[in-house]
Amino acid sequence: MTRTRHDARLKIGILGASGYTGAELVRLLARHPAAEIVLLTADRQAGKTLGEVFPHLARLPLPDLVRIEDADWRGLDVVFCALPHATTQQVVAGIPKDMKIVDLSADFRLRDVATYAKWYGHEHLAPDLQKSAVYGLTEIYRDDIAAARLVANPGCYTTASELPLIPLIAGGLIGADGIVIDAKSGVSGAGRSEKLGNLHTEVSEGISAYAIAGHRHAPEIEQELSVAAGRPVIVTFTPHLMPMNRGILATIYVTMTNGAVAEDLRIALAARYENEPFVHVLPSGRAPATRDVRGSNHCLIGVFADRVPGRAIVVSALDNLVKGAAGQAVQNMNVMCGLPEAMGLEQEALFP
Amino acid sequence: MTRTRHDARLKIGILGASGYTGAELVRLLARHPAAEIVLLTADRQAGKTLGEVFPHLARLPLPDLVRIEDADWRGLDVVFCALPHATTQQVVAGIPKDMKIVDLSADFRLRDVATYAKWYGHEHLAPDLQKSAVYGLTEIYRDDIAAARLVANPGCYTTASELPLIPLIAGGLIGADGIVIDAKSGVSGAGRSEKLGNLHTEVSEGISAYAIAGHRHAPEIEQELSVAAGRPVIVTFTPHLMPMNRGILATIYVTMTNGAVAEDLRIALAARYENEPFVHVLPSGRAPATRDVRGSNHCLIGVFADRVPGRAIVVSALDNLVKGAAGQAVQNMNVMCGLPEAMGLEQEALFP
Amino acid sequence: MTRTRHDARLKIGILGASGYTGAELVRLLARHPAAEIVLLTADRQAGKTLGEVFPHLARLPLPDLVRIEDADWRGLDVVFCALPHATTQQVVAGIPKDMKIVDLSADFRLRDVATYAKWYGHEHLAPDLQKSAVYGLTEIYRDDIAAARLVANPGCYTTASELPLIPLIAGGLIGADGIVIDAKSGVSGAGRSEKLGNLHTEVSEGISAYAIAGHRHAPEIEQELSVAAGRPVIVTFTPHLMPMNRGILATIYVTMTNGAVAEDLRIALAARYENEPFVHVLPSGRAPATRDVRGSNHCLIGVFADRVPGRAIVVSALDNLVKGAAGQAVQNMNVMCGLPEAMGLEQEALFP
Amino acid sequence: MTRTRHDARLKIGILGASGYTGAELVRLLARHPAAEIVLLTADRQAGKTLGEVFPHLARLPLPDLVRIEDADWRGLDVVFCALPHATTQQVVAGIPKDMKIVDLSADFRLRDVATYAKWYGHEHLAPDLQKSAVYGLTEIYRDDIAAARLVANPGCYTTASELPLIPLIAGGLIGADGIVIDAKSGVSGAGRSEKLGNLHTEVSEGISAYAIAGHRHAPEIEQELSVAAGRPVIVTFTPHLMPMNRGILATIYVTMTNGAVAEDLRIALAARYENEPFVHVLPSGRAPATRDVRGSNHCLIGVFADRVPGRAIVVSALDNLVKGAAGQAVQNMNVMCGLPEAMGLEQEALFP
Repeated sequence: MTRTRHDARLKIGILGASGYTGAELVRLLARHPAAEIVLLTADRQAGKTLGEVFPHLARLPLPDLVRIEDADWRGLDVVFCALPHATTQQVVAGIPKDMKIVDLSADFRLRDVATYAKWYGHEHLAPDLQKSAVYGLTEIYRDDIAAARLVANPGCYTTASELPLIPLIAGGLIGADGIVIDAKSGVSGAGRSEKLGNLHTEVSEGISAYAIAGHRHAPEIEQELSVAAGRPVIVTFTPHLMPMNRGILATIYVTMTNGAVAEDLRIALAARYENEPFVHVLPSGRAPATRDVRGSNHCLIGVFADRVPGRAIVVSALDNLVKGAAGQAVQNMNVMCGLPEAMGLEQEALFP
Repeated sequence: MTRTRHDARLKIGILGASGYTGAELVRLLARHPAAEIVLLTADRQAGKTLGEVFPHLARLPLPDLVRIEDADWRGLDVVFCALPHATTQQVVAGIPKDMKIVDLSADFRLRDVATYAKWYGHEHLAPDLQKSAVYGLTEIYRDDIAAARLVANPGCYTTASELPLIPLIAGGLIGADGIVIDAKSGVSGAGRSEKLGNLHTEVSEGISAYAIAGHRHAPEIEQELSVAAGRPVIVTFTPHLMPMNRGILATIYVTMTNGAVAEDLRIALAARYENEPFVHVLPSGRAPATRDVRGSNHCLIGVFADRVPGRAIVVSALDNLVKGAAGQAVQNMNVMCGLPEAMGLEQEALFP
Repeated sequence: MTRTRHDARLKIGILGASGYTGAELVRLLARHPAAEIVLLTADRQAGKTLGEVFPHLARLPLPDLVRIEDADWRGLDVVFCALPHATTQQVVAGIPKDMKIVDLSADFRLRDVATYAKWYGHEHLAPDLQKSAVYGLTEIYRDDIAAARLVANPGCYTTASELPLIPLIAGGLIGADGIVIDAKSGVSGAGRSEKLGNLHTEVSEGISAYAIAGHRHAPEIEQELSVAAGRPVIVTFTPHLMPMNRGILATIYVTMTNGAVAEDLRIALAARYENEPFVHVLPSGRAPATRDVRGSNHCLIGVFADRVPGRAIVVSALDNLVKGAAGQAVQNMNVMCGLPEAMGLEQEALFP
Repeated sequence: MTRTRHDARLKIGILGASGYTGAELVRLLARHPAAEIVLLTADRQAGKTLGEVFPHLARLPLPDLVRIEDADWRGLDVVFCALPHATTQQVVAGIPKDMKIVDLSADFRLRDVATYAKWYGHEHLAPDLQKSAVYGLTEIYRDDIAAARLVANPGCYTTASELPLIPLIAGGLIGADGIVIDAKSGVSGAGRSEKLGNLHTEVSEGISAYAIAGHRHAPEIEQELSVAAGRPVIVTFTPHLMPMNRGILATIYVTMTNGAVAEDLRIALAARYENEPFVHVLPSGRAPATRDVRGSNHCLIGVFADRVPGRAIVVSALDNLVKGAAGQAVQNMNVMCGLPEAMGLEQEALFP
């Protein structure tokens, strides 16, 4: 494939294309009207076509997989990194400076490199780059993203948690203390790794909590809620593994302040997201379901009065691989490159 | 089938045998060494064999299904009612006085008939019988159950919630206020009813919350936690529908009191249930999973420190059709009839 | 919605929009660059928005659901019928003559109305229309479809069976006798009907054959294979219900003729479908999987030598709601209306 | 655990207890009235309790896992081998001669060691022992099994295929040529191995054929059908992977001989298995489903007329881990040791 400027499409590289997030990036970008995938890396699968690794993508005209050290960086406009953490910091540091980067790992999400070191078990390897990274929760940081070179795409659980909580905390409608986030995720969140806990036999017909009080998305959520609250916030966060492939449902328990009732919260969120293409606050009484966002970039939010006076229950649903990863990454690319924000992301959920 | 006292086995009737709970009662009682099923009712399926309605039970020697008004009550020792609510109250009122009854509906669980009327939409039809009913959470009310004629078998969500919470509240280790119960259930909890929301296409590959802040198991949980606390308690309770058939996982968020830490809670629960055959507190750091109780009468409990100081996360798992329904009902029968409590319930979980 | 010719897009009506096939038509046509949905009917759901019936489609600008007798037919270009059989014949007969029709029911698939009457239990209600109907297996009848007013969209099992078999029979590579089609389908093929057999509890964790030797797609398959063979053909066809939502896999057992070997079959099919956008013959040794076509209009075909000399095994996979229903219907509309055949159908499979 | 002859129960060793088959043996044998598990080996998990490897079995009193070379063989009555092939041959050769052995691997199933070498890629390591091994299809070889020291437990697909086919071939009701076995299996048949193809994300919502015309159970089926036919038989056999954990459904296409019709086949099979506790021929028109045997040792068989004259469709269903592995192994142990054949295997299927 000779890489010529025969059209105005953005030249795209995807690092780490052999994981589920990489495949989802390909699915979305291959049909994106203003993008052209010209580089795909995957160390262990180098030399193969992507169709050999992901047969469902075999019909797309795509470059073969190469090792990252064999990558031809010339002419690239945007690089998506879907690499394991730590690896990413080194790789990103070496990407030519004229290319925009959307990093889907956790490596640049935490502004405080000490917090990173604590949760990820090693010193941050690119602290200077960290300072320039913009947190990629599109609806909250849109203007910063538009001006950024390096965007740290948020985690799946964090997107589902932060989209409803940030406006409610920032608006003074709920207290920042005592928030309980009970989150449920499909198995694709665990990646395509050959681990016992991800086997069909182990996952199907069963549910369980994991990483209780110790999941790495907790500090990320707390970082953003602290910004919204203007002071340090600590949350209760419990992830659960569900017998399904895609989807996150976050059931969030909050205490209202200043005499607010649940409908006030719902109205405030609806107003906040009224013009957003991908965040939708449901009518009163309607509960989000992950089946309604499967494969789409939508996030649905519902708000309910609790029976306990002064408390409310907020439920959000998204597809962890789309709005929780690849979809939001493409959304961020659109913002970074001045394209219409929803370009390439219009497709509805696949149901049933 | 001529019903003769050719052996000492208890003669059992099951009313409402064509639902999943009824089938599960048959599965357990048909192999119970001290029981013999002699009556099966199912109004809409009357005239059929149970094997026609549930082919997986076709190999068992069982009486045919009859309408409840055609039931031959003679010689019955124990009657299990697995009927819809309200119906149950009338039927139970008509059962001969010398028979013991385990009712699996919600009809006799709420001691306060006004609370019943509020949540179920009609006046209680057997308020006098209600007074004599014993709440059938075996591990808590064993002595009362042993002396009871009518036992109101607890709900599935309530069993999963009450087993860990009652000792913690009664023991003063946690506060009774602000408890959040985030519960996840398999689809069999919805019964064998032909409803849109129970179709495979609607359920699989998706999760959702339902009856938020309005589920009928909430007042039942509150009733028992209020007894434990010695004052009225109100809880936050959110049920979720999971893409699996069996199992409930309850993730419970509590505030500790009197300087307790999570390990204190775990140790207290472990001590409380040390000699129980069916309630098991896991070692520190181990999380319960519904796959480990599927088809069994076990309830597993794990306790975890929250990252929020002073708070803990308690997780319980059980099979909604067994410990959450038919299994506990048989356990109660064993207690009521002076049999070994685990008789007929020894089977391990089916995994994978 | 005022229906004005403000653009050149085809005005589309969908009759029976509240079923899964109807929803899939909406999903595809709402993003089709040359189509605009202006009429949606659904008798039992009339008065609702489509978003109330299918929340995953709530973000689309769509007309509300109306009863079929309240439909405003003015200005429609193409009507898709996703109605139950028999109903369709009457409705189609009443559609204004200047509109093109793609019928997704079985009502016009069988050319012989006597065969229809035998399998569907009643006389054909529009035998004259039947004569003008074109069988809508796009890759086989493309030219006829281009000239047709009424296209009878093939069944899901039949598409999966006919695409590999017709060229092999017509090419004299396999015998038309003794063909065994063992087909496996997801639950969405049963529609959105509230039937016991479609409940999650009944379907998940289990498989079964149904309508053995009596499924209505058998005569449809036989009709087309008879055309290919030039004489009457009878097939062995067994459908199975799978614990998944979407997808059909047909495992087809054939006897080769004229000394052909399996690779001859594979090469012949590959040549036949070389330029087709949606039918793909896999490299030697690669087996199709339904996960690789989920949500897409692709049909994958693999061919394998049997260990029994002279016999081969052909495997095909497609999404029953897309290439097996709504996708092929849109493909046919494109052909009928002179549009690029793949327009609106380019999306890749959703995996995982 | 001091191993004393304090009771008359058979002392049982299970080699390879950390796989699904091993766990299933434990589940069944731990409740077997005449058995006591005294040895569990698992090389990679040695030193752990079985409950650490399989939490669902943590409530059972069991010996810890040891390496096979650390096994204490003294006093063992019966050894179950659930080891990978080849390994088994060496291990079995070293087991003390006074112990009975049920081998669940493929190592002693093929009487012809040359056929073994061809399909398994290496010379048989215990050809002398092979001569003394009895093929453990209980209903067919019961008398030989009763006298055997070493029983080769059949494969899961083979049990599902041979139970219906052997009597039909032996009885001259069907031809031995042209038999097509289209088999569908749950994922547990692939074991607890951490392979990409067994991940939930890869398996759920999808089906595929694998090892087409090359599965190792084919020669085993052919061996037994050849015995029944009295001459060499070759079959068409295609296994498929299903998105469920347990269960095999075999759809078998046969040609009838001597003027037989399908009902003749059904009646012959029903007569053949009339007194069998675990093989059940369904009434005319009823199709077996794997959900009806899940967790049980039952095998269900249905027979249907094909629409093609002279041909019939036979469908069988069993649980691959029970009648297809551990259950039949226990059944064989019962026969070998003179116990009631159904002892410890009475439990009904778990549904839903």
